[in-house]
Amino acid sequence: MMARYQVILAYDGTEFFGFQRQASGPKERTVQAVIETALRQLGWQGKAILASGRTDTGVHASGQVIAFDLDWAHAPEALRSAINAHLPEDVAVQTVTQAADDFHPRYAAQARRYRYRLYCQPVRHPLRERYAWRVWPPVDFDRLREALVHLHGTHDFAAFGTPPRAGGSTVRSVTRAEWIAVSPDELVFEITANAFLFRMVRRLTGFQVAIGQGSLEPQAIRECLESGSRALVQYLAPPQGLTLVEVIYRDNLVR
Amino acid sequence: MMARYQVILAYDGTEFFGFQRQASGPKERTVQAVIETALRQLGWQGKAILASGRTDTGVHASGQVIAFDLDWAHAPEALRSAINAHLPEDVAVQTVTQAADDFHPRYAAQARRYRYRLYCQPVRHPLRERYAWRVWPPVDFDRLREALVHLHGTHDFAAFGTPPRAGGSTVRSVTRAEWIAVSPDELVFEITANAFLFRMVRRLTGFQVAIGQGSLEPQAIRECLESGSRALVQYLAPPQGLTLVEVIYRDNLVR
Repeated sequence: MMARYQVILAYDGTEFFGFQRQASGPKERTVQAVIETALRQLGWQGKAILASGRTDTGVHASGQVIAFDLDWAHAPEALRSAINAHLPEDVAVQTVTQAADDFHPRYAAQARRYRYRLYCQPVRHPLRERYAWRVWPPVDFDRLREALVHLHGTHDFAAFGTPPRAGGSTVRSVTRAEWIAVSPDELVFEITANAFLFRMVRRLTGFQVAIGQGSLEPQAIRECLESGSRALVQYLAPPQGLTLVEVIYRDNLVR
Repeated sequence: MMARYQVILAYDGTEFFGFQRQASGPKERTVQAVIETALRQLGWQGKAILASGRTDTGVHASGQVIAFDLDWAHAPEALRSAINAHLPEDVAVQTVTQAADDFHPRYAAQARRYRYRLYCQPVRHPLRERYAWRVWPPVDFDRLREALVHLHGTHDFAAFGTPPRAGGSTVRSVTRAEWIAVSPDELVFEITANAFLFRMVRRLTGFQVAIGQGSLEPQAIRECLESGSRALVQYLAPPQGLTLVEVIYRDNLVR
């Protein structure tokens, strides 16, 4: 019997040209295309899977959420194994649950949580570069925490990114943002918001690193939020430090 | 002026056919060959660099030590930058220091420290697989610690590996061995010994995982050590979980 399935997906973004399948032009390797190819081998005949949102080229995910309709006769756990058997090494289904027939991973999402990892070292380290951004000179943790104060709450983030649809709202609500010192030379920026603009987390990270290194003052964040001028935000952290960690739903939307 | 340099090297072993340059046959990509190519661009004319030891295909290093003679007119820090500028992304020099003229990274080494990382999950996770071995069912931490007791000290490790030279001694002294629970589902095995047999850490890890999963008893380690029979040790942990972390020298051997 046809049912809608909600799937939590993890992928290493290094070898993908982002999440979203490319509609035209040269067909680069994308997460969506790889998933859809796997699903077709299980009898899926849809036009496109649904997703909570796209991730950029090189960005990772441990908690991307997708959904699709499938006629599957067995348990969801067996579906997980079946999909994974058809997926390449750099992407894997973590959980499969049956969802309400009208569940949409983007519209139903209440919030998204991202994590940006960086390490402060003067020399590159091949075992750390794949999932983190190397930063030098080191950043001042106290300055980062001062900068955070200005981030919390509902703001117009126009200076830090563009909306998914041209002309769309650039107002977003940050419900949680923190810097965590994972080890003496390793920092993690975690941010949860109802939704994000394109490149918003990477611009916020790059901007805060400039603050932490002393080239900007902590209150510069507030000035950018107030002016809304993209010209002020020249800092874009590279993609490999970023991971989409979680998409948050109201419990009652998922069976 | 010609001088000997000691270099600490980090590499991601995924795309290398091990450390050691291949003398004959098809020339696979090795760490040694890549380093020697970089050094030649800086005027190095030696036949081969010296190393603390080889690492297998797919094994990583954060603290491999090599040495070579070079006529370098500037500071060691400048040599570090110069070498790194000629190295690919998956290998990088961490430190360069001038050493005694007769310093040999293998013969002068007092001990080596390796780290093996594993995580216990029923489903593969693309962001964790590159530097860890996924293990399921989960391992019992208490059983691992029981197994460790038999490892400490000087033993004939013939059952767990082969010596670098055929007919060489298989006696090694383990000065430190411990299992560390890094997170609820992640374990690290750290072991320090004066030297290691080929594949010894991977065999010890695979064997202990079998103990932790209940298919062997903790004292089986002692039985293997006493019998010396390779036939008993069928367990070889895969290379991607293993990292050569440190090579330990007496201070007075390095200037």
